[in-house]
Amino acid sequence: MLLDGRKLSQKILGELKEKVKEIAKPLRLAIVMVGEHPTALSFIKQKKKSCEDIGIEFKFYKYPDEITTAQLRKNIHVVCKLKKNTGVLVQLPLPSHINKQYILNTVPPEKDVDVLSEKSLGRFYTVRSSIIPPTVAGIMKFFEEYEIEVKGKNIVIIGAGTLVGKPLALHLVNLGATVTVLNEHTPDISRYTKNAEMLISGVGKPGLITGDMVSEGVVVVDAGLAEVGGGKMRGDVDFDSVSKKASFITPVPGGVGPMTVAMLLSNLVTLETHQK
Amino acid sequence: MLLDGRKLSQKILGELKEKVKEIAKPLRLAIVMVGEHPTALSFIKQKKKSCEDIGIEFKFYKYPDEITTAQLRKNIHVVCKLKKNTGVLVQLPLPSHINKQYILNTVPPEKDVDVLSEKSLGRFYTVRSSIIPPTVAGIMKFFEEYEIEVKGKNIVIIGAGTLVGKPLALHLVNLGATVTVLNEHTPDISRYTKNAEMLISGVGKPGLITGDMVSEGVVVVDAGLAEVGGGKMRGDVDFDSVSKKASFITPVPGGVGPMTVAMLLSNLVTLETHQK
Repeated sequence: MLLDGRKLSQKILGELKEKVKEIAKPLRLAIVMVGEHPTALSFIKQKKKSCEDIGIEFKFYKYPDEITTAQLRKNIHVVCKLKKNTGVLVQLPLPSHINKQYILNTVPPEKDVDVLSEKSLGRFYTVRSSIIPPTVAGIMKFFEEYEIEVKGKNIVIIGAGTLVGKPLALHLVNLGATVTVLNEHTPDISRYTKNAEMLISGVGKPGLITGDMVSEGVVVVDAGLAEVGGGKMRGDVDFDSVSKKASFITPVPGGVGPMTVAMLLSNLVTLETHQK
Repeated sequence: MLLDGRKLSQKILGELKEKVKEIAKPLRLAIVMVGEHPTALSFIKQKKKSCEDIGIEFKFYKYPDEITTAQLRKNIHVVCKLKKNTGVLVQLPLPSHINKQYILNTVPPEKDVDVLSEKSLGRFYTVRSSIIPPTVAGIMKFFEEYEIEVKGKNIVIIGAGTLVGKPLALHLVNLGATVTVLNEHTPDISRYTKNAEMLISGVGKPGLITGDMVSEGVVVVDAGLAEVGGGKMRGDVDFDSVSKKASFITPVPGGVGPMTVAMLLSNLVTLETHQK
């Protein structure tokens, strides 16, 4: 069965549209970007489109590659201070000369829709945050919609990155799942993936997971994303072979991606309604 | 081979004593406790003794069980504001009517030797903290001293608590280990423990891990602690049967416990020397 991110995200965006209408004041998502990144730019376009679809304003702040950490931080401070910007997001990746976490910390928790500042992550870690990182939230929405229980399940996560693996592992541990996190140093990942009841991959290596590496009935979520030339995006999972065995599986594109965008905007609305 | 926490902690405390002498100003550990807890009190005594051994002052603040969260927070604010208190620790457990995390958040990161406030945990999560939670640090010291590599290892953690399992899992994931976190909802823990190259338990259930549940050569760290009557403390691991198969194993008492105390004071010295 397909975990259809396009369909589910549209449903969520539809609900958000109603909520946005109910909120008397205009909402605005501000996105900060540094340098040139065609892929990042296409993500931003998707976020912009979803904003427009549900009546959230969108503002794009773009800075040149040469900007220093100090200059960028100053600029983001100004962006965050603006009352009009109800949610602020720093688009990743940042150039390597920029102190990434220091920059992400510039966004105050009440506007940090991506949950990437230390303060927001501290709240997330202690289970005291009103929102959770968008990709994690998007994946959890799949499980909610399709009534897939995580407590007590053997869940294998491939990759321990800041956007998928690490926050997802923490969240699933908090929910009582048995969680295994694999990485590039794991000698034989199929030893773990074969026993997984649920498998979530967030590496960015097309074709990493093939049908022979999973068990019949496994739930597969593909949060990996890599460009394979010509602007075409692929996930970590070899869909054709794995989908033959999986009970549930996300496609790429049309799986986790649109869910992340929807939950990002859901976070913006939640921060607006819960914290102010 | 025994991972001897008494011996290693004495070595660390000896090194700290020299560092404390080099620091021109007096250092002081302040411990805040609420209500009556004989076990907690015995832990505090151990911390006090280690402070005295290495020339760190010790101050004990004790409040009655009936104190409210608001009153306690006010008091801890005062304790933290005092320049003399270079490190501040809220002894757990707190009475159930107290908002635990809200209280732990009162301690500012520069004095938070236990790394339990949201701010400190946010820094720890993003790998930007100069210190790590004392129990995690103590366990890592064992691995360092006995040259046990964690990267690429299959490490199984039993229990996802705030003091051991959760921060340890995060830290080991950051170090490139393959980490599995088990909990009370895991159907059959021996399925995981049998494959573990390293096994770390932090549950508080005496005899939870027996020899038939582990493989030959496993490294076993017992961070569980439960009172079994008469003030006697026991770990999660059945030492007699497990030690026959383990390549390395911590005893209880005399394993993780004294290491935690030593690393707590090490954190105090680090915060003093690195952040001020």
